[in-house]
Amino acid sequence: MLSNHLQNGIETARLAWSRLPNAEEGEQEDIGLVQRSDGSSSVESLDYEVVENYAYWEEQAQRGKLYVGYYVMVKWFFSLLIGIGTGLAAVFINLSVENFAGWKFALTFSIIQKSYVAGFFVYVLINLVLVFSSVYIVTNFAPEAAGSGIPEIKGYLNGIDIHGILLFRTLIGKIFGSIGSVGGGLALGKEGPLVHTGACIASLLGQGGSTKYHLSSRWLQGFKSDRDRRDLVTCGCAAGVAAAFRAPVGGVLFALEEVTSWWRSQLMWRVFFTSAVVAVVVRTAMGWCKSGNCGHFGSGGFIIWDISGAQEDYSFEEMLPMAIIGVVGGLLGALFNQLTRYISYWRRNHLHKKGNRVKIIEACLVSLITSFISFGLPLLRKCSPCPVSDPDSGIECPRPPGMYGNYVNFYCSKDNEYNDLATIFFNTQDDAIRNLFSAKTIHEYSAQSLLTFLVMFYTLAVVTFGTAVPAGQFVPGIMIGSTYGRLVGMFVVNFYKKLNIEEGTYALLGAASFLGGSMRMTVSLCVIMVEITNNLKLLPLIMLVLLISKAVGDAFNEGLYEEQAQLRGIPLLESRPKYQMRKMAAKEACGQRVVSFPRVVKVADVVSILQSNKHNGFPVIDHTRNGETLVIGLMLRSHMLVLLQSKVDFQHSPLPSDTRAGSRPIRHTPSEFVKPVSSKGLTLDDIHLSPDDLEMYIDLAPFLNPSPYIVPEDMSLTKVYNLFRQLGLRHIFVVPRPSRVIGLITRRDLLIEDNEESATELQSTSVRARHHDRRVSMGNGDAELPLLNGLLVQGHTSS
Amino acid sequence: MLSNHLQNGIETARLAWSRLPNAEEGEQEDIGLVQRSDGSSSVESLDYEVVENYAYWEEQAQRGKLYVGYYVMVKWFFSLLIGIGTGLAAVFINLSVENFAGWKFALTFSIIQKSYVAGFFVYVLINLVLVFSSVYIVTNFAPEAAGSGIPEIKGYLNGIDIHGILLFRTLIGKIFGSIGSVGGGLALGKEGPLVHTGACIASLLGQGGSTKYHLSSRWLQGFKSDRDRRDLVTCGCAAGVAAAFRAPVGGVLFALEEVTSWWRSQLMWRVFFTSAVVAVVVRTAMGWCKSGNCGHFGSGGFIIWDISGAQEDYSFEEMLPMAIIGVVGGLLGALFNQLTRYISYWRRNHLHKKGNRVKIIEACLVSLITSFISFGLPLLRKCSPCPVSDPDSGIECPRPPGMYGNYVNFYCSKDNEYNDLATIFFNTQDDAIRNLFSAKTIHEYSAQSLLTFLVMFYTLAVVTFGTAVPAGQFVPGIMIGSTYGRLVGMFVVNFYKKLNIEEGTYALLGAASFLGGSMRMTVSLCVIMVEITNNLKLLPLIMLVLLISKAVGDAFNEGLYEEQAQLRGIPLLESRPKYQMRKMAAKEACGQRVVSFPRVVKVADVVSILQSNKHNGFPVIDHTRNGETLVIGLMLRSHMLVLLQSKVDFQHSPLPSDTRAGSRPIRHTPSEFVKPVSSKGLTLDDIHLSPDDLEMYIDLAPFLNPSPYIVPEDMSLTKVYNLFRQLGLRHIFVVPRPSRVIGLITRRDLLIEDNEESATELQSTSVRARHHDRRVSMGNGDAELPLLNGLLVQGHTSS
Repeated sequence: MLSNHLQNGIETARLAWSRLPNAEEGEQEDIGLVQRSDGSSSVESLDYEVVENYAYWEEQAQRGKLYVGYYVMVKWFFSLLIGIGTGLAAVFINLSVENFAGWKFALTFSIIQKSYVAGFFVYVLINLVLVFSSVYIVTNFAPEAAGSGIPEIKGYLNGIDIHGILLFRTLIGKIFGSIGSVGGGLALGKEGPLVHTGACIASLLGQGGSTKYHLSSRWLQGFKSDRDRRDLVTCGCAAGVAAAFRAPVGGVLFALEEVTSWWRSQLMWRVFFTSAVVAVVVRTAMGWCKSGNCGHFGSGGFIIWDISGAQEDYSFEEMLPMAIIGVVGGLLGALFNQLTRYISYWRRNHLHKKGNRVKIIEACLVSLITSFISFGLPLLRKCSPCPVSDPDSGIECPRPPGMYGNYVNFYCSKDNEYNDLATIFFNTQDDAIRNLFSAKTIHEYSAQSLLTFLVMFYTLAVVTFGTAVPAGQFVPGIMIGSTYGRLVGMFVVNFYKKLNIEEGTYALLGAASFLGGSMRMTVSLCVIMVEITNNLKLLPLIMLVLLISKAVGDAFNEGLYEEQAQLRGIPLLESRPKYQMRKMAAKEACGQRVVSFPRVVKVADVVSILQSNKHNGFPVIDHTRNGETLVIGLMLRSHMLVLLQSKVDFQHSPLPSDTRAGSRPIRHTPSEFVKPVSSKGLTLDDIHLSPDDLEMYIDLAPFLNPSPYIVPEDMSLTKVYNLFRQLGLRHIFVVPRPSRVIGLITRRDLLIEDNEESATELQSTSVRARHHDRRVSMGNGDAELPLLNGLLVQGHTSS
Repeated sequence: MLSNHLQNGIETARLAWSRLPNAEEGEQEDIGLVQRSDGSSSVESLDYEVVENYAYWEEQAQRGKLYVGYYVMVKWFFSLLIGIGTGLAAVFINLSVENFAGWKFALTFSIIQKSYVAGFFVYVLINLVLVFSSVYIVTNFAPEAAGSGIPEIKGYLNGIDIHGILLFRTLIGKIFGSIGSVGGGLALGKEGPLVHTGACIASLLGQGGSTKYHLSSRWLQGFKSDRDRRDLVTCGCAAGVAAAFRAPVGGVLFALEEVTSWWRSQLMWRVFFTSAVVAVVVRTAMGWCKSGNCGHFGSGGFIIWDISGAQEDYSFEEMLPMAIIGVVGGLLGALFNQLTRYISYWRRNHLHKKGNRVKIIEACLVSLITSFISFGLPLLRKCSPCPVSDPDSGIECPRPPGMYGNYVNFYCSKDNEYNDLATIFFNTQDDAIRNLFSAKTIHEYSAQSLLTFLVMFYTLAVVTFGTAVPAGQFVPGIMIGSTYGRLVGMFVVNFYKKLNIEEGTYALLGAASFLGGSMRMTVSLCVIMVEITNNLKLLPLIMLVLLISKAVGDAFNEGLYEEQAQLRGIPLLESRPKYQMRKMAAKEACGQRVVSFPRVVKVADVVSILQSNKHNGFPVIDHTRNGETLVIGLMLRSHMLVLLQSKVDFQHSPLPSDTRAGSRPIRHTPSEFVKPVSSKGLTLDDIHLSPDDLEMYIDLAPFLNPSPYIVPEDMSLTKVYNLFRQLGLRHIFVVPRPSRVIGLITRRDLLIEDNEESATELQSTSVRARHHDRRVSMGNGDAELPLLNGLLVQGHTSS
């Protein structure tokens, strides 16, 4: 009987230990988890760690290749769905915005033929209603939909789950909120929100629909692990950019450069596919709309500011003004980050604490100011006479009212005059940018108008940033940048007096420089700029300008998204360790004392431990036969809470359950251990335990992560940081320096091919020999079956 | 006195331990080293690990921010130089090739006006001479310059240093070799070699010039660590692609997707800069050449096959033929990989073993066959009458002899006829591709000609692959792909009978599909195709085709570069672990027994250990006061050899040197420990030790890596693999499961800001308490200063 008992113990222990790897593809295992950041209660930890040692997965693995094939297929199918969904969302948003704005301008133009005052009131009123609808939806229905959402998505992919950012209501709030805020003419864009929208769609698909609104579908619930969800959200993010700018390659690079902390080539491949799907969906929809089915949409909007007619060539003298644009972009971008940081800080800590009404009033006030300025300022501006243009160019001056194009006749006394300030100010942003980028329109704008616009719009953009509406910074950034770019271009044209210099090209470079100076992206931004302007020839120039502006900006502060993430208390791990970490050892970084569990723990103890601290991970310690302690794994707080809630694993005996029962029945499905995305998850307060329950025990062995990563206590903190970030870990055990080395893994050991025999060479040397003896005396069995010894000693006692 | 001794011991030990981090920026530390792969003696280990604990670095670190600033500046300066160098090399190669080829065709054309036989002989002879010069240079001067070099560079960046690939002679051989082989009309390209050229330039810059040829400059020798060199080579690689295709973004993505195993965003930023520099250099040179300074160069060549006039739009019916192109590309690409694999295998193991003469004869034979086919086949082809074209299009038919363009009149009886096969076959590859991509030339080629060309060129490309000349596969791939693409395009035009379908567009898609099917890149290839054709509108189609062709190809075999790397015995670590690793523990992977050193080791023992095995890393073991062993670090074989050679660290006493001497004088510079790139490095045979030397001792403590990464013995091998590959490690210690956890590092611990105080919460729980006692009894000092105890016990003995 004893030998049977022992055999059972050995088997169970083996099982417990052999369930090391996690899920489906044998890829990375522990991904980016985070300690709950204390200061900000809204930040939740994101549990990428799957319940990796649970028997369910063992079963799944046994189903083998067929299951893996199915799983891969589902992944690709999801990528397809994300692409389609995000593409459609983008088309819907753009369609609505273009129609609202087009209708608004058409109405205003038709009214101002009779009365400017009436037109003004109508214009202000429409804007106010649109902005009010947006801010009302956001404040009352989806508060997480405010802002661009990119810092939050960045945080999610870095490992931090912020409440509510990936919920269905946020998706809805984001879509309808951006329609209102962008249609209402505020100084913000719809591109950032689209990235968030894509991420929401991806996340909702990943959990098989929204559980709250009963839109959940059972057969889509394959993706319960946080790692899979994170991959989907990455796809959604890329799809968002691809849809927002119609820039598929830019989308892939954005996801790569800006958002993901952790990247694999397989994922790149899937992200690429998603972006391609988006491109096809958007193109199809645009084709359908071109036949006039979509109202105002399709004639002008949806990005692509084609400047293929721009200057073909550039000379070395132009490098200097271009460098100046880069420097200006860096300065203005850094200033923008700084100002928005201050304003957001003030809003967060003072204004927005006063409740939703204040938020609504604030947004409406901003809307009123914006309407006043954009209507009022052009009125003060004197009109210029139309230039004598050749009829071939297709540019009419003045343009017919209510249509898109340059040279708007606004409050002009004569018929063949135009108002240059109204051309950029009293217009949708897409059209304003198109007008600023436009070639063959030299001297369309006066320096005075451009300067006025720059100052006013910059101020508006800063003030608008942080109001409770969905708001992107791409388009405002392009507006600001292209204004001073065009300004520089005007001086260049006047100074060099060459015919082949186009002001529109300088406007483009200015736009790139401001975005570079503010957002500090390089490769993805460069590709996005090229894709939206459809002109590859300017690529080296855009690169140059971006390099300069990013370098200048970096001298002052961090990128916009990093600043905002910091402000919101999202603890992003940067890609490089801090300088002072070089002088620190791993041990010095451990801020808190370790609290550990024994293998079999009393429920009352669990509760008191969980109550007494906020740790999310606990080492589990067991004893070997000869009384030595041994770390057998890591137990997560969230998993512990699930065990406490379900109670099925409670036992009366304080001995490990395996030795008594043989193989345990499966009492949990892995999905029980998964926290729904964007939710708070279980807390101790949700769990009610009777006094009897508190006297029970739990054997933690089947539920812990048996081999978390470990580092020796005196390892340099930079090394630890790299380990942590590169592998996206949540917990690392700092352990004492080991007493011996069992083996050395080298590259060759990891190249597992068919020929494994050739590698065994036995050596015996004088130096090693004296250690060898020692090693043998320490007992080989001890090295091979550490848990087993603990089991055996207890099994022995119990039998 | 004892306390002084002790104090000294503590200080020295602290120093030894505090010298943990390595070099300059606090980035990743140990990068991608490799165990010498036994089977293939040409593969050397690449030593990314710097001599991280050497006192010199301590000094450097103390110089502080100023030094870091200087270091960063040098890095950027090197990026600039790499960009300029690679750009100039690309211009030089293209200039030479275009001039040789242009002169060859001009001469041949002028002779065939009188005699086709004489023209044929001249043509064959010129080709033969060019190819002979190439193969002669390569075989006698730079054998490593043969082939494309991309697999080798991939290997280098993955962590394997292959002899000779980054030497000065290889650079020279590559440049002049490609001029000969490409100018000689072989079915190969100059793009792959340019990537290798860029990498060579970068590496040579990194070591401050070629030491062998006394071109070394002292002040450039800042980059002695393998990590810095690897970064430079990455830049060089991107610069190569950027220069080869004039595709700067493509270059960045190529370096990212295809070659680097390990990537940081800071590096991306620098690679981006290098690519931008290349773009500017190439553009400047091209501008200079356009005024006619460069002979035949500039009028036609240097890629950019502009198809901006291609079809604007595509309908859904066209998706089917495009998908077919993708499938065909996948099939033909996989077949190409398989065939070249067989042929390379045969060449390597049979033909090329017979010596250089056989290689030269082989290359000349291939040249003769290529010349015969490219001249002879068009002769057999009947000419077609010129189409009636409008004079506005600028396309002349037949084109004037000796110039570039479509519709060549070759062996035609009438004046207004052209030979379609000669148009693509009897031409430089650049022009052939331009002709295949050309729009507005519907029905220029007959299906028969295209099929003939496809079969013949495919065969030639397969046969040429692996001859001893520099050879890229991009351009041949584009040739093959665009041929069947155009073929499909012809059928589509005939079938759908629409006017807006261009055969050239299908040719482009065909090219993308073949490259996708053979090389299996996606994002970078996509961007490169877009950049060289200067047409963004086809992006979604290219994406689609690439996705299909890669998927089809993946079903059969691996990508071209992976196949070739495998064949050459380059052990690349793939990005994902093998499936069977999921069931293995770390311990099972350790193929060889561990051989360890004591801290102070006898020289004779060192020699016998190094002789008895081929390990590259050895754990170093020391003893604590109470006789326990303790692993104090990792000693590299190469560093050990340096110590043996220099002999300055030999000592008579078998006791640690520190306790006797206090602070040691600095006897080494870090550069002594660095193996010159692409060389064999020191071997034991280079070192001569007298019998007296053998009786001496070495204290290894100052020279070892004090904290290599460790994993517990029963960790899943997939986890170990990920750790190894993500951090680019060379050695991992497999250690017993730890007995206790000193601390837990979480995300919050790594977010070091100014507010460090807020984090200390003391907890005391019933469960932890009983472990706590134990911990205290084990001695806190023991945990904090493990080496120190060893020092103390020995210092105690000696005093």
